[in-house]
Amino acid sequence: RTIIVNFSSRFLQGILERLDAGEIVIGDGGFVFSLEKRGYVKAGPWTPEATVEHPEAVRQLHREFLRAGSNVLQTFTFYASEDKLENRGNYVAEKISCQKVNEAACDIAREVANQGDALVAGGVSQTPSYLSCKDKAVVKAAFQKQLDVFMKKNVDFLIAEYFEHVEEAVWAVEVLKESGKPVAATMCIGPEGDMHGVTPGQCAVQLVKAGASIVGVNCHFDPDTCLETVKLMKEGLQAAKLKAHLMSQPLAFHTPDCGKQGFIDLPEFPFGLEPRIVTRWDIQKYARKAYDLGIRYIGGCCGFEPYHIRAIAEELAPERGFLPEASEKHGSWGDSLSMHTKPWVRARARKEYWENLKPASGRPYCPSMSKPDGWGVTKGARELMQQKEATSEQQLKELFQKQKF
Amino acid sequence: RTIIVNFSSRFLQGILERLDAGEIVIGDGGFVFSLEKRGYVKAGPWTPEATVEHPEAVRQLHREFLRAGSNVLQTFTFYASEDKLENRGNYVAEKISCQKVNEAACDIAREVANQGDALVAGGVSQTPSYLSCKDKAVVKAAFQKQLDVFMKKNVDFLIAEYFEHVEEAVWAVEVLKESGKPVAATMCIGPEGDMHGVTPGQCAVQLVKAGASIVGVNCHFDPDTCLETVKLMKEGLQAAKLKAHLMSQPLAFHTPDCGKQGFIDLPEFPFGLEPRIVTRWDIQKYARKAYDLGIRYIGGCCGFEPYHIRAIAEELAPERGFLPEASEKHGSWGDSLSMHTKPWVRARARKEYWENLKPASGRPYCPSMSKPDGWGVTKGARELMQQKEATSEQQLKELFQKQKF
Amino acid sequence: RTIIVNFSSRFLQGILERLDAGEIVIGDGGFVFSLEKRGYVKAGPWTPEATVEHPEAVRQLHREFLRAGSNVLQTFTFYASEDKLENRGNYVAEKISCQKVNEAACDIAREVANQGDALVAGGVSQTPSYLSCKDKAVVKAAFQKQLDVFMKKNVDFLIAEYFEHVEEAVWAVEVLKESGKPVAATMCIGPEGDMHGVTPGQCAVQLVKAGASIVGVNCHFDPDTCLETVKLMKEGLQAAKLKAHLMSQPLAFHTPDCGKQGFIDLPEFPFGLEPRIVTRWDIQKYARKAYDLGIRYIGGCCGFEPYHIRAIAEELAPERGFLPEASEKHGSWGDSLSMHTKPWVRARARKEYWENLKPASGRPYCPSMSKPDGWGVTKGARELMQQKEATSEQQLKELFQKQKF
Amino acid sequence: RTIIVNFSSRFLQGILERLDAGEIVIGDGGFVFSLEKRGYVKAGPWTPEATVEHPEAVRQLHREFLRAGSNVLQTFTFYASEDKLENRGNYVAEKISCQKVNEAACDIAREVANQGDALVAGGVSQTPSYLSCKDKAVVKAAFQKQLDVFMKKNVDFLIAEYFEHVEEAVWAVEVLKESGKPVAATMCIGPEGDMHGVTPGQCAVQLVKAGASIVGVNCHFDPDTCLETVKLMKEGLQAAKLKAHLMSQPLAFHTPDCGKQGFIDLPEFPFGLEPRIVTRWDIQKYARKAYDLGIRYIGGCCGFEPYHIRAIAEELAPERGFLPEASEKHGSWGDSLSMHTKPWVRARARKEYWENLKPASGRPYCPSMSKPDGWGVTKGARELMQQKEATSEQQLKELFQKQKF
Repeated sequence: RTIIVNFSSRFLQGILERLDAGEIVIGDGGFVFSLEKRGYVKAGPWTPEATVEHPEAVRQLHREFLRAGSNVLQTFTFYASEDKLENRGNYVAEKISCQKVNEAACDIAREVANQGDALVAGGVSQTPSYLSCKDKAVVKAAFQKQLDVFMKKNVDFLIAEYFEHVEEAVWAVEVLKESGKPVAATMCIGPEGDMHGVTPGQCAVQLVKAGASIVGVNCHFDPDTCLETVKLMKEGLQAAKLKAHLMSQPLAFHTPDCGKQGFIDLPEFPFGLEPRIVTRWDIQKYARKAYDLGIRYIGGCCGFEPYHIRAIAEELAPERGFLPEASEKHGSWGDSLSMHTKPWVRARARKEYWENLKPASGRPYCPSMSKPDGWGVTKGARELMQQKEATSEQQLKELFQKQKF
Repeated sequence: RTIIVNFSSRFLQGILERLDAGEIVIGDGGFVFSLEKRGYVKAGPWTPEATVEHPEAVRQLHREFLRAGSNVLQTFTFYASEDKLENRGNYVAEKISCQKVNEAACDIAREVANQGDALVAGGVSQTPSYLSCKDKAVVKAAFQKQLDVFMKKNVDFLIAEYFEHVEEAVWAVEVLKESGKPVAATMCIGPEGDMHGVTPGQCAVQLVKAGASIVGVNCHFDPDTCLETVKLMKEGLQAAKLKAHLMSQPLAFHTPDCGKQGFIDLPEFPFGLEPRIVTRWDIQKYARKAYDLGIRYIGGCCGFEPYHIRAIAEELAPERGFLPEASEKHGSWGDSLSMHTKPWVRARARKEYWENLKPASGRPYCPSMSKPDGWGVTKGARELMQQKEATSEQQLKELFQKQKF
Repeated sequence: RTIIVNFSSRFLQGILERLDAGEIVIGDGGFVFSLEKRGYVKAGPWTPEATVEHPEAVRQLHREFLRAGSNVLQTFTFYASEDKLENRGNYVAEKISCQKVNEAACDIAREVANQGDALVAGGVSQTPSYLSCKDKAVVKAAFQKQLDVFMKKNVDFLIAEYFEHVEEAVWAVEVLKESGKPVAATMCIGPEGDMHGVTPGQCAVQLVKAGASIVGVNCHFDPDTCLETVKLMKEGLQAAKLKAHLMSQPLAFHTPDCGKQGFIDLPEFPFGLEPRIVTRWDIQKYARKAYDLGIRYIGGCCGFEPYHIRAIAEELAPERGFLPEASEKHGSWGDSLSMHTKPWVRARARKEYWENLKPASGRPYCPSMSKPDGWGVTKGARELMQQKEATSEQQLKELFQKQKF
Repeated sequence: RTIIVNFSSRFLQGILERLDAGEIVIGDGGFVFSLEKRGYVKAGPWTPEATVEHPEAVRQLHREFLRAGSNVLQTFTFYASEDKLENRGNYVAEKISCQKVNEAACDIAREVANQGDALVAGGVSQTPSYLSCKDKAVVKAAFQKQLDVFMKKNVDFLIAEYFEHVEEAVWAVEVLKESGKPVAATMCIGPEGDMHGVTPGQCAVQLVKAGASIVGVNCHFDPDTCLETVKLMKEGLQAAKLKAHLMSQPLAFHTPDCGKQGFIDLPEFPFGLEPRIVTRWDIQKYARKAYDLGIRYIGGCCGFEPYHIRAIAEELAPERGFLPEASEKHGSWGDSLSMHTKPWVRARARKEYWENLKPASGRPYCPSMSKPDGWGVTKGARELMQQKEATSEQQLKELFQKQKF
């Protein structure tokens, strides 16, 4: 087959027009993990003040995703609600306000999006207020404050992402929906459902009823597990006779061993996840599987680097008819290796080779799976926390200090 | 202990003054692998035309290494000899000359180096001419052409790196030495020595006699193996009563299973190496071990990302008295996790936890080690190639096409 | 605690009297696998003609299990139905009749049982006739023929074991029940149920209704999976308000990766299972878990060697008040190592050490899990076979010869 | 090819006549490990009083090895020197003298050997006296006492095996040689040599000079490592222009990760070694490699079960012209699976399948290699012990009790 590298702006329309027309929309990758490794985000708080402090670093990462094939650039506003930024105040210079962080994020994303054919999506995520106060008005006000910036900066559409509780996600969708812009909503849950035990199917139904046009999952689980969860969402929507586009933005880490709360509970989180990083070939398989499942908004979350996004674009190039710009520096299925100096490396320039490779870890003293360590704490305490019986971070902290880890 | 983050220019001198004074010099990480994943370098040819095509991407990576603690920024001139660039001509736009690639590399490195306390090192690496024609004059002319640019741009010192044969490395040092600038030389060999069977100790002796002030290894092997090789070089120099500074820039991949030719021969090279990526904690152990061995120029090669370089700077902060700029976004030994929302993740905010973690691969269907596949080809053919009996790429290609892989 | 080694005959009663009184009954281990490694059983046919050909070898294995703590010696009559023995006729000397094999098995078991406090159980297992002809009368006649021998030799009770289809197991129970002796029935199924899709709970209900006083599982899955399955059986019986004793005789191989048909489908079956062999400590955990689940007939199947049975007896010694005879040659939790010549080996003479050990495979080139390869054949063909649409071995063979493996 | 199963006594001669004539002699397997699992030997002391207490168990194991193809039955006299038996006195009933244990061992071995074509070899092994008193006369007297029994019982030849120090092995050979019977000598060392640092080559030379006609290694290391060691012995003998037959009796455990002292130091020793057990196919590769190396006395040590010995006999059947008796119950390279009920299992009835299988451990939470834990103790203490500066078990014990493990 011949695929033409076509960099011209063939997309002229909004997110829903694209999806309604049956097009494949490719999302972007994970900013907090990528920028943590580049030196601009602190693990633990994971807040995005880099938009103000180091805009060039954020801009460059956007540029790389655009070049790799992303059709959506998400504003780097993860955990950028005012309560979260204040909560982590000691890490953020006093003069950087929530508004500044969000505004800068919008400006940078738009600047880069204009260099190609990409939409800008303003994003909100779960808030500490939800866990600590459970007050609907307070939580919604936090989303509203971010939405005000998104409206002022005129993003193309909105994403409510990374919610562990569908109740909070619904509140977010309700706020965002008021804007009149299309709303996508993704939860960071697995097949077992949200932290209150709501199944993926029920979550999807609630989100669509609240106004989301696109639903799915992001983060917390590996590609296979995420697709399994989206499948359950799809079935839930079908059973309820509801329609919505499906979306998937998983981790770029293998997590066959994690429990209900996903990779957070794995002992390797967040500083020892390297051996779990997925290859570009894993991502090609993921993209194909997602497509076959009917998902048309296909992207990534933590761990996704530009080359992972490019792998989605390359796998689906036959369906789309074009390759991303970054493919000028990449041979499909390793064929650039035909230029390698070693003959036996040249012999790897073929699809069958990479498709079947079982890559070794180089770590004979390490196991292949771990026991999630969240379960090491007293089950009662954990459940208390998840039921939000403990009403504040401080209470939780005290509660857990009584446990032995 | 208290470590003060000190960003002022405390280094005022050249590379030899620094090393002679007993200071620790931190190198930078691997450009070709990092920029391949960002979408700017093509695996196989691995050439650096991005300096001209996408200077902002190269500049950003330099910036990240500087911020992570690098005291040396190497010009992105790996495989930028004229014969190599021409050899891979179909990948390089006709109008981008060898000179332009090298000049742009110098300009970008200098621009970023000036933003901090870093030296610029001009680098040359092994050439296709050596393998194909064995003509000393031709090979030296290739190095000279690059050196002319380095002199015009006035780099601070010179590095001859990534040589599999000490004979060619000596030729490179001889050319570079003529400039009057300090010369460092590193070979991409393991404890078994170079491809002609010259031991690490003998390699070091020859390089110092040719004029190198700093010798060591880079690339092809993991940190532990590289340190073992530098140790052999050190012993060789001691036996010969020669003095030189020691340098180490290994892979950021675990390669306990590779053979004489290093990671090139592993079946995972170059697109399935993910499970082998080292953690920041692995690097802290490497930095300590390198220091204890007497190595004072400590950096990395393929796979080293900015956070790996930061790990060197953090491990050796007690000796140096300061942390790198990027540590503002990193808690030593995971202590930023004390701000995490989950109590059991907060329990990971301690050195003992990360030091002892045996990270799982999440890949139960994959082994932990591989057999190098270079040995799968007929031994005779391989030896022929390594003895350079085959005088051209074309001859080699034909030779190997007769083999079955 | 003090545990008295007590070899006197404290059991005087039949199997049901013992279980009704709340006693723990320890079963024996796997004969076909053990005798295959000793050189007396052929893998593939797995038939027990050794009872006639090499009675001393069968007798010795019985003796070892008795000494290790078995309270039941099963006659070595696995796959000893006439149709199976004939089917594999080329392996069985013509003069060894089905009756002789079964009679010799009874004699040997009784002889050894009399040397201690053990009951003799006559056992039947699934027949080739069931799969090929589906004729209830034919299948029942096969069981009857074996039962006639068991009655003549006056075994203490009867076991119908290793059934993949509950329908056939029920037929077996119906035949055995006619004898008036207590009947136990175990299926070789996992949590997904029998090959026709009958759940474990339903299987248990049908078996008890057919007359089994003891129900459970044997073979095909590892201890954890078997316990999960027995738990489902227990719940099924509770829901149906039926009462029966529970029994568990799992593999001594770790099989976390197998599918519905168990270890048969793993690529390692049957000649590469070594790395999966469970340790004595794994068995102590299994025994405890089984006990906690309310199972009181606890034994093993393929892979269980005498030391595994002893581990059950040692784990439950506090509940039972005595140790098995073979414990004279075994220190609890490794305490005999306190006599080792190397001090660091002596340091392993403690429970905590062995309880927490994660034993390495010594096989860095091997993975930790496999894909069951039964699924590699065309799904249609597999289903056909399992639905018994193919009416004979020959038809199946032809069917599969059309597939490529 | 056609191989005739030939059970007639084709060997009529002694061990040296056989080896001199170029015949392959197959040894037997490991008694202490096998009988420990069967319940007759206690791990830790590892003494052979079972010859008196449970002769039927010892006899049966001899019978299995004979049937599997062993041409030599070693008397079960491992660690049966008087000082060792007394040292472990609390495990041995007072009335069982050293002489009785040794005599019974000879009687049992001879009885079984007479049932086929096997020689009986009387064996001695290292003594506690050597480590504690270093008195040549005392140590030699211990060997003499065992030799007196062997001469009285007229064994066919003698083996000095399992020596960590060549000095003691030489003493043993000197004693045994006095008898006039052929002497074989094997050390339990790896390529690094004996515990005093004597190389394998030097060990072999000393043993041959002392009078051994057959030299090699047994125990402590896996087949590959043992063959590497025997190769070094062979080279040592060649360099010294000495001639001797070569012998190899390795572990049946994979131990790529052990240190100088072999599997004793692995954390899994002795109760967690299961995942390391070698398959029959591993043994076929070992037998072939041993044969190609010129070794003609090929057997096994700890972990070797009858089916492993049979694998040696089957691999070398083309060279020998016959199969062992136990092959009546074994199809070469899995061909008995052609009778299996499942078609996809029948597809495994071929050499290529088993030869290439990388068997999974079924243990995703376990690593593939371990760190030897002998190195965890203070190096000084360990060296002291190995230099025998500590003159008694008691002193060593005290020395190590001061260490923390």
